[in-house]
Amino acid sequence: MGAKEKYFSNISNRERAIFEGAISMGALFHQFVGTPFNRKTAESLEKAMEESFTLQPCIDKVEVSIDLDRLDKAMTEFEYTSLSGDMLDVKIYSKVDDVLAVIRIEFIEELNYPLMYVEDIIE
Amino acid sequence: MGAKEKYFSNISNRERAIFEGAISMGALFHQFVGTPFNRKTAESLEKAMEESFTLQPCIDKVEVSIDLDRLDKAMTEFEYTSLSGDMLDVKIYSKVDDVLAVIRIEFIEELNYPLMYVEDIIE
Amino acid sequence: MGAKEKYFSNISNRERAIFEGAISMGALFHQFVGTPFNRKTAESLEKAMEESFTLQPCIDKVEVSIDLDRLDKAMTEFEYTSLSGDMLDVKIYSKVDDVLAVIRIEFIEELNYPLMYVEDIIE
Amino acid sequence: MGAKEKYFSNISNRERAIFEGAISMGALFHQFVGTPFNRKTAESLEKAMEESFTLQPCIDKVEVSIDLDRLDKAMTEFEYTSLSGDMLDVKIYSKVDDVLAVIRIEFIEELNYPLMYVEDIIE
Repeated sequence: MGAKEKYFSNISNRERAIFEGAISMGALFHQFVGTPFNRKTAESLEKAMEESFTLQPCIDKVEVSIDLDRLDKAMTEFEYTSLSGDMLDVKIYSKVDDVLAVIRIEFIEELNYPLMYVEDIIE
Repeated sequence: MGAKEKYFSNISNRERAIFEGAISMGALFHQFVGTPFNRKTAESLEKAMEESFTLQPCIDKVEVSIDLDRLDKAMTEFEYTSLSGDMLDVKIYSKVDDVLAVIRIEFIEELNYPLMYVEDIIE
Repeated sequence: MGAKEKYFSNISNRERAIFEGAISMGALFHQFVGTPFNRKTAESLEKAMEESFTLQPCIDKVEVSIDLDRLDKAMTEFEYTSLSGDMLDVKIYSKVDDVLAVIRIEFIEELNYPLMYVEDIIE
Repeated sequence: MGAKEKYFSNISNRERAIFEGAISMGALFHQFVGTPFNRKTAESLEKAMEESFTLQPCIDKVEVSIDLDRLDKAMTEFEYTSLSGDMLDVKIYSKVDDVLAVIRIEFIEELNYPLMYVEDIIE
């Protein structure tokens, strides 16, 4: 067992897939919220978010989609706004051996909250 | 089942405790890394980190301890430095019904990496 | 002239006071926006923001006041929200020799924008 | 005089160019420090940093260059590291009417500090 693996011997592959995906989702949100952007720069921001967090342990893929309607509503006199959590729709795919977890954040109207949850687990 | 709970019906209490603790750990790291601080202000920074992330879903307690030796080594001519991940020793206790998970970050020399892992789960 | 000072020999004391205060204001905003908080934890967050950025070069004092009405409007089902720029009312006092600059951020309704500007300069 | 301009009537164009460039430099540092990256993703991160902060008031151009030698030295067992301030070499060009200010951050060995200063002002 490698140096890294001994720290995870107390949880199952399924649990570790959930764990690693959740870390990256919390991290992505708090790293990038506040970034200035508008419709013209949304694409480079999405790409940087995707590439950055695909590097983290066990992350297989990251898909980021910023809600442009919410961007438009938050637009200022200066023709840009700050990225906020309610604009984020992100899927993070984390893979540990034969388990793939899909962690999601999306804004849930009835909670007025950008909820992070486990959308799917494929074993 | 409440509006919040339906999003978590596909995972166990144990898995959700891991999930929520992991989100908060990833979030805490990326929210606060980069903050200017020195020995005099370490305490107020630790307190803000603890209080902020205790608010997140299912988080019972957060204990933050900044490694002051690493702070000293990173000190600049301006008598402060930026908080970096290798200085963090944090425990996040997440609780879902009867399950308590302890999520930890600490710097692991042999990996040259501030590792996040599940330190303990009490059921 | 010290090692630090030679980099500022091309600007006046007044200009440097503006410069250093502006850096700290931009920094403070982007460091802390996104932090989870509610009315109970607002005070520790304000204190950490004040102490952290008072450390930066030439900063004499930082006063942070979070707009609790805006906090209340942004409150979620989970009894906290994320700090956003529109909630910030901050004054940063930067001092270079005999010049004191007061840099301010406050939300300006007619711009729908949290504006940073030089509120006062005392020479 | 527009709504925005009245807040800047107490400073000269030269001072405002310094002010706006300094805000964006402090902001850029604290927004992006902590982001996971390696040599493969450095380019998308640099691009997002450049495009994001070119949007801020009076910013004409942003040039970001990450020090890849410092990246290599900070590399971990997980084949990426976190962006830190000492890796940043950034120029922000801010323009107010006929004044162009060049704000720079670069790591200064003798200060052990990533210094922000006014590199040039062209009037």
